[in-house]
Amino acid sequence: MNTDLRKLLEDVKAGVIPVNEAELLIKKEPFIDIDFAKIDLHRKDRTGVGEVVYGAGKTPEQIAAIVTKLREASKEGVLITRLSSEKANELQGKFNLELTYSEAGRIGICGSGHRADGLGTIAVVTGGTSDLPVAEEAALTAEFLGNRVERLYDVGVAGLHRLMSKLDILMDASVVIAIAGMEGALASVVGGLVSCPVIAVPTSVGYGASFGGVSALLSMLNSCASGVTVVNIDNGFGAAFSASLINHMR
Amino acid sequence: MNTDLRKLLEDVKAGVIPVNEAELLIKKEPFIDIDFAKIDLHRKDRTGVGEVVYGAGKTPEQIAAIVTKLREASKEGVLITRLSSEKANELQGKFNLELTYSEAGRIGICGSGHRADGLGTIAVVTGGTSDLPVAEEAALTAEFLGNRVERLYDVGVAGLHRLMSKLDILMDASVVIAIAGMEGALASVVGGLVSCPVIAVPTSVGYGASFGGVSALLSMLNSCASGVTVVNIDNGFGAAFSASLINHMR
Amino acid sequence: MNTDLRKLLEDVKAGVIPVNEAELLIKKEPFIDIDFAKIDLHRKDRTGVGEVVYGAGKTPEQIAAIVTKLREASKEGVLITRLSSEKANELQGKFNLELTYSEAGRIGICGSGHRADGLGTIAVVTGGTSDLPVAEEAALTAEFLGNRVERLYDVGVAGLHRLMSKLDILMDASVVIAIAGMEGALASVVGGLVSCPVIAVPTSVGYGASFGGVSALLSMLNSCASGVTVVNIDNGFGAAFSASLINHMR
Amino acid sequence: MNTDLRKLLEDVKAGVIPVNEAELLIKKEPFIDIDFAKIDLHRKDRTGVGEVVYGAGKTPEQIAAIVTKLREASKEGVLITRLSSEKANELQGKFNLELTYSEAGRIGICGSGHRADGLGTIAVVTGGTSDLPVAEEAALTAEFLGNRVERLYDVGVAGLHRLMSKLDILMDASVVIAIAGMEGALASVVGGLVSCPVIAVPTSVGYGASFGGVSALLSMLNSCASGVTVVNIDNGFGAAFSASLINHMR
Amino acid sequence: MNTDLRKLLEDVKAGVIPVNEAELLIKKEPFIDIDFAKIDLHRKDRTGVGEVVYGAGKTPEQIAAIVTKLREASKEGVLITRLSSEKANELQGKFNLELTYSEAGRIGICGSGHRADGLGTIAVVTGGTSDLPVAEEAALTAEFLGNRVERLYDVGVAGLHRLMSKLDILMDASVVIAIAGMEGALASVVGGLVSCPVIAVPTSVGYGASFGGVSALLSMLNSCASGVTVVNIDNGFGAAFSASLINHMR
Amino acid sequence: MNTDLRKLLEDVKAGVIPVNEAELLIKKEPFIDIDFAKIDLHRKDRTGVGEVVYGAGKTPEQIAAIVTKLREASKEGVLITRLSSEKANELQGKFNLELTYSEAGRIGICGSGHRADGLGTIAVVTGGTSDLPVAEEAALTAEFLGNRVERLYDVGVAGLHRLMSKLDILMDASVVIAIAGMEGALASVVGGLVSCPVIAVPTSVGYGASFGGVSALLSMLNSCASGVTVVNIDNGFGAAFSASLINHMR
Amino acid sequence: MNTDLRKLLEDVKAGVIPVNEAELLIKKEPFIDIDFAKIDLHRKDRTGVGEVVYGAGKTPEQIAAIVTKLREASKEGVLITRLSSEKANELQGKFNLELTYSEAGRIGICGSGHRADGLGTIAVVTGGTSDLPVAEEAALTAEFLGNRVERLYDVGVAGLHRLMSKLDILMDASVVIAIAGMEGALASVVGGLVSCPVIAVPTSVGYGASFGGVSALLSMLNSCASGVTVVNIDNGFGAAFSASLINHMR
Amino acid sequence: MNTDLRKLLEDVKAGVIPVNEAELLIKKEPFIDIDFAKIDLHRKDRTGVGEVVYGAGKTPEQIAAIVTKLREASKEGVLITRLSSEKANELQGKFNLELTYSEAGRIGICGSGHRADGLGTIAVVTGGTSDLPVAEEAALTAEFLGNRVERLYDVGVAGLHRLMSKLDILMDASVVIAIAGMEGALASVVGGLVSCPVIAVPTSVGYGASFGGVSALLSMLNSCASGVTVVNIDNGFGAAFSASLINHMR
Repeated sequence: MNTDLRKLLEDVKAGVIPVNEAELLIKKEPFIDIDFAKIDLHRKDRTGVGEVVYGAGKTPEQIAAIVTKLREASKEGVLITRLSSEKANELQGKFNLELTYSEAGRIGICGSGHRADGLGTIAVVTGGTSDLPVAEEAALTAEFLGNRVERLYDVGVAGLHRLMSKLDILMDASVVIAIAGMEGALASVVGGLVSCPVIAVPTSVGYGASFGGVSALLSMLNSCASGVTVVNIDNGFGAAFSASLINHMR
Repeated sequence: MNTDLRKLLEDVKAGVIPVNEAELLIKKEPFIDIDFAKIDLHRKDRTGVGEVVYGAGKTPEQIAAIVTKLREASKEGVLITRLSSEKANELQGKFNLELTYSEAGRIGICGSGHRADGLGTIAVVTGGTSDLPVAEEAALTAEFLGNRVERLYDVGVAGLHRLMSKLDILMDASVVIAIAGMEGALASVVGGLVSCPVIAVPTSVGYGASFGGVSALLSMLNSCASGVTVVNIDNGFGAAFSASLINHMR
Repeated sequence: MNTDLRKLLEDVKAGVIPVNEAELLIKKEPFIDIDFAKIDLHRKDRTGVGEVVYGAGKTPEQIAAIVTKLREASKEGVLITRLSSEKANELQGKFNLELTYSEAGRIGICGSGHRADGLGTIAVVTGGTSDLPVAEEAALTAEFLGNRVERLYDVGVAGLHRLMSKLDILMDASVVIAIAGMEGALASVVGGLVSCPVIAVPTSVGYGASFGGVSALLSMLNSCASGVTVVNIDNGFGAAFSASLINHMR
Repeated sequence: MNTDLRKLLEDVKAGVIPVNEAELLIKKEPFIDIDFAKIDLHRKDRTGVGEVVYGAGKTPEQIAAIVTKLREASKEGVLITRLSSEKANELQGKFNLELTYSEAGRIGICGSGHRADGLGTIAVVTGGTSDLPVAEEAALTAEFLGNRVERLYDVGVAGLHRLMSKLDILMDASVVIAIAGMEGALASVVGGLVSCPVIAVPTSVGYGASFGGVSALLSMLNSCASGVTVVNIDNGFGAAFSASLINHMR
Repeated sequence: MNTDLRKLLEDVKAGVIPVNEAELLIKKEPFIDIDFAKIDLHRKDRTGVGEVVYGAGKTPEQIAAIVTKLREASKEGVLITRLSSEKANELQGKFNLELTYSEAGRIGICGSGHRADGLGTIAVVTGGTSDLPVAEEAALTAEFLGNRVERLYDVGVAGLHRLMSKLDILMDASVVIAIAGMEGALASVVGGLVSCPVIAVPTSVGYGASFGGVSALLSMLNSCASGVTVVNIDNGFGAAFSASLINHMR
Repeated sequence: MNTDLRKLLEDVKAGVIPVNEAELLIKKEPFIDIDFAKIDLHRKDRTGVGEVVYGAGKTPEQIAAIVTKLREASKEGVLITRLSSEKANELQGKFNLELTYSEAGRIGICGSGHRADGLGTIAVVTGGTSDLPVAEEAALTAEFLGNRVERLYDVGVAGLHRLMSKLDILMDASVVIAIAGMEGALASVVGGLVSCPVIAVPTSVGYGASFGGVSALLSMLNSCASGVTVVNIDNGFGAAFSASLINHMR
Repeated sequence: MNTDLRKLLEDVKAGVIPVNEAELLIKKEPFIDIDFAKIDLHRKDRTGVGEVVYGAGKTPEQIAAIVTKLREASKEGVLITRLSSEKANELQGKFNLELTYSEAGRIGICGSGHRADGLGTIAVVTGGTSDLPVAEEAALTAEFLGNRVERLYDVGVAGLHRLMSKLDILMDASVVIAIAGMEGALASVVGGLVSCPVIAVPTSVGYGASFGGVSALLSMLNSCASGVTVVNIDNGFGAAFSASLINHMR
Repeated sequence: MNTDLRKLLEDVKAGVIPVNEAELLIKKEPFIDIDFAKIDLHRKDRTGVGEVVYGAGKTPEQIAAIVTKLREASKEGVLITRLSSEKANELQGKFNLELTYSEAGRIGICGSGHRADGLGTIAVVTGGTSDLPVAEEAALTAEFLGNRVERLYDVGVAGLHRLMSKLDILMDASVVIAIAGMEGALASVVGGLVSCPVIAVPTSVGYGASFGGVSALLSMLNSCASGVTVVNIDNGFGAAFSASLINHMR
């Protein structure tokens, strides 16, 4: 779709590329069809980042097949998110995959990530200890995508001095990822303190009227602080992905 | 129900009070039945506060009738909440009621409130300017019920320094009423700063995913700060009532 | 934040405290940073109550580390809420913690609580037998925080005489904690009978359209009785914490 | 459908009713088709009550046409619910309908209702003054359908003694219709006091988290008292209809 | 509360009952307090039905204790609802209770129910096969409470002829209990066919947008057929209890 | 997108179409850009139906501009949905548009619709009289798109015989559009009776727990009858559009 | 109900069919009553498709009994949906049923389906790999009902070129079944590209604010593309059933 | 809070700033307290953007007072959002404010905005014509904050070619603001096509199950495309603010 259409048409006219082939190029090229999945090889060109495999809804067999195809096609590392330790074990054992696994963030990496070439630092901030899995998903993703990361955990607003004591780090960051469950007030407070973009991640941490993260999600969407945008509940990966795009603006 | 039952029974036995009359006393006494309403005259004895008239669902005629009966029965002032300026005008004009009216808080008062005899000060704090009607409902109610009130308006968490600059007042208060719409983060931040009870009032201020106050309500219910309890959306009266009970503990 | 700022600045000016150190004092002092958690040592000074550990989202290792740090820093007892019996066993066994554990209330206590020095009694009232875990969480917390507690269980409004027969206890209380699931009517009925503050706790007891406590929560927020405030579903701890603050007003 | 099928078939066989006609009888008879409406003339035979016209979604023209057809076909009175005073005026004026109109209950009656021949009394009980329109809809409907009605208004549970003083009337009733908005606790309390069926009607009275009657509806559906069934929010008519069926059991 | 108050007061006056004792009678008599439960012995007098034990939130120990107390106090049978087969086994084995258990309806009965002395028959109708547990809870409860029951299962509206073929039974019933999950249309169709009261029970049968019974619940509350009232999702017991009250009207 | 890509490329190669132009053709051709709207001229080729103008969110000016452009480009009639009578008047008057307007269905037509060339008849069935606006939107749209339409109004399931008497028409239809508010049971009953596709349209008719059509929507999505698909609340147009596609299958 | 009524009545009149028998025919014939289920034998005549057994809420015993009855009565194959592999094993083993089982689609088939005699092809399109179970339920059902099926899996809109490369197949289809979880945008995009009816199936794939398929469901109901109708979350069977009806229109 | 603390302390020590004054500086300086509002003068220093006045909840008097104070304190232009034309008129007339007003975007500007000094272009894309008010709020805000803006309106996914024809503009943008109501699919499709950050704005455009923007909001939160973050419903300002921060990264 976003191939250089004019170039292609000119090549067709010049006879450099035959009609059949041109049609094929437009239609078939940018992915490998392995039946249950269409693996996107040009995504890096198009969106600036290589294929990321969402591990939650896939069997180890499917993940292994996709990763193998990706690794054959490019030297880029591959990031696998929402990967349980059981699946990681199977991938490393039965499927013989060279995989670095972080249980905290449920993330596996084959090959190596990008070197840290972002504008500045991405600060990953959490309200409580229980937000850690989402925070690590964000932090590891951001590092893989070529960013320096500062982790500020358990600095929720009920003890404001904990957050205040880290104000330097916050104010130096290029982007802040604010992660909180329960009432999600962290995003608003951080948003009022810093002058960089803040990406808020509601987490499903809480009970009762937290409704699995809905309370935090609504809080963050209604944030009275400007400069705050929001991603889905527990979506540490998505926050890091956007943060990395922002941290690589130029 | 909470008459001294034993005393009554003893009087019955002693013949001081005839059976018929005792039965009547238990059944009929504590209120006046004016058809469309049962006016509670002993509520002050029972709950420590005189009758309060909720003006929203009543016609000026009904309000006038209830207030008149209450004023006949006691010297106590009467507080009318959710009173529109139209109804207030009609009560003052057509019904000739001596009524002090505050449009900001939609509150009318007949007679005078209690003198300020609470333990300390009740701080009424709002996140924004738009929360003012709820805040005034709370502040005027608290004053009527015999409390000194400090108003701290428009000190929302997106500009934390505004709140911080008033920290003395907050920390000196006996009770804090924290009023906020949108994401309602104020309650958590205030709750983490003070050592007194905090009563949180979500307001219907906001738009979109604030859902008429639901976002703030959920935030406040999920507050990570201890010592915070919550009342219904926009219920400034209820917050002040509870705050006054607390400020009169002894 | 709520350090005596003026005092500190004067000490800086007087040269008593060097600039570096003052900066440090403001930033670093009030908590210990043990990586996954920021333990708040001055919380007692600030909010009147020592650190309470929320056990649900933490591993026994994390709990043990936090409790040990707290016990080293102060003689105060430590309260651990939402503690499963499995974790309690591990804390007592593997981690060698001197822990008093109540399975009914899922609460562990290291050291001893405060002596009962409140103004009066906190009455913990439940609608049914199934509300018992929340009730015990509230009752044990209140006792730990230095309050006398009266337990009135299974006195729901469908059999009003059960509640009425305990009217003396209710009317003598300083604060009532009203705990109920299903339709949560208990809070309104109790609120109409007593003259002290009532803190209502909706529970997730029920089925079908109780929606995990939402029905009771809404009931309580809409209570037609004045003087009722509400906490999150199943939040026995929060109710007791606020009740204790109120019972220690002076 | 519930014609005596066998009788009809026998008549067909005997030649008393020709096939054409029998087919017609089954298909066409029980209602008049006036294009925009199918008026049910046999509903009384089938469900024990004559046609009732729901006035809310219909123009005065449509209502007049339907009522006229019904009055031509039978001597029974016709009940029109959810009838605004504007429409009532137009029906009485422009359409020359002999209509008795109650503004309180938004109900119009053409002709006369049934004489009171029920087993006992239907008690219509409300929590507050604002529930009056729904209560009058219920009371007037019940009277139209041949029941004696006792009205107990403004006896909500926050002042339990008001309800208690009317216990005789409640306990004498055949059926109780319990009408309340806000937290809807009235249904549970009444349900625990009486031994007859209770039909609960949630009303849209309230604000904030009452969500237009949802809070009261959920309360009533979750009532811990047995013998309570529920109808739609503000559905005074439906409650009275069912109550009348019950009060005419034999 | 509903003791004959006048009689009691007269006895007090006459000296037949001493004051102390009268006070006691009013306060203590109608239930046995066994700590975790208040067993209601006079409920039969008050509401016409003996105590029913809701088994879901109680341990076998608690159930056994309550049943034993009830059996000591009266010859009436005891009905236990929401009783799992595990608990039933334990009650029969370890606690030696003479218990008749129905797994289909999750109901246990100690002693015998009432003889069938209702006005007519209660028809229990279900939309599908999966509604059977709720239907049996209703049917067995109705039988225990002294009613004849007709079971019409799997006659949902998608195959209308199945329902039509049973029209005789439906039309002969005193009360119909209409039980359905998914879209819950059964209640409206049945409500349009019969002239007796219909009690609708939404069930949690379904998937996706049935939201655990909410779809059926809303359908039933909005039923366009008159004479339909509704109980909580899956509340077969509640429907049968109300149906039995109606079937015993006189 | 769905231009014949191969043909175009061949023309480019053959030099019949220059590269510039080909690029233009792919990019610019299928619509006219009039700033605030992109008018789709080839939609008929692509989806089989000409452009339909959704009138609700547009000013008369905008509608007039779009219709004029469409009429210039093709002889096809133009259908305008959700058109208020005010806007229709203005279009006819101020903007001089030849417009046939139906107030019942809030639909305007410029030019003429297609001749009725469908496979069979589309039956438009409603539960009540109040569903008429949605029904007329559906019926007029279906007629415009070249279908014969049978209207069966006010045949809701509470009076099943009304529906049954029209069974012939239902069973002869190619497609049935079942329109109902409140509990929406009509879709399931109709779905069980016919063998053709049924498209269900929930309407916002109702009050209280109908929640603006949500109750009917859920009912229809959960329909136990096969062959039922659903469109958005009040979306008569969408139902007719799909029904017309189906009625023109070959 | 939809027997030829006139024919039957004429036979009754002619004495060909006795009254008793005619009554019986109307009432009893179209299904076999096996107590817990009413098996519909004439459904094929009435709705064009044989009985389908919904396996989820039934025991293997119940399924086996129903299938056996159906197979005795007709040569038609029987389709069993939502059949777990455990139940399938038991049916094949213990109950000796000749069953072809697909684990991917959780579907069992006894006997053979219809030969592919539809108008064209049904395209089954999914947004992602995780939608596969729903897609296979749809595809296998459609094949069983006599349709050719094209499967296009993992062509979600985030990589539009994957979908575009399959445009030929999409544009050749008679009906498209668009299956997607998360944001469900696939239905709108596909609906804008094709000119045939699109049936959208939201799936419960996703996490956080996907709310078990609600997000996709709402997306699809609000699709800005015409020609899209929607079925319940995860209801692959229902989509295929409707698609098959459409693909057999003539 | 984010004053240079060390600098201040050093000045205190050096005696440059007296203690009293330092205390004052920390507490009072960063805003002007005009009773009903705390005007933030240093916000530009802190967050990089001057004060923006949210006009919706404020009277013209309040707005005029705030703007005047801001204009006195700085030469920066002031942006007023959610400003109705009535209020704009009053500000220009009665309050004599030099105000440039855009009715389309409900935005007023006093003074001039920043010159366009961003990294690149912000593309503002809408699904339909009705999304225009939100789009203009976004576009005008972005321009005020110093960004070049490209407007692409009415390019919704149901006519994909409209979007495709603008692919160059999309792919050249630094940030894309994707604005859509109804099903909100635009965000996912755009997110899959571009490699820059996408900020999605759900709008309240739609009807029925769009639930005032909730459907679009959920779609966008669940977007399968990476790089998409979301703001509150109709929050064009918030999207532009974040987009501007991103477009000024360096």
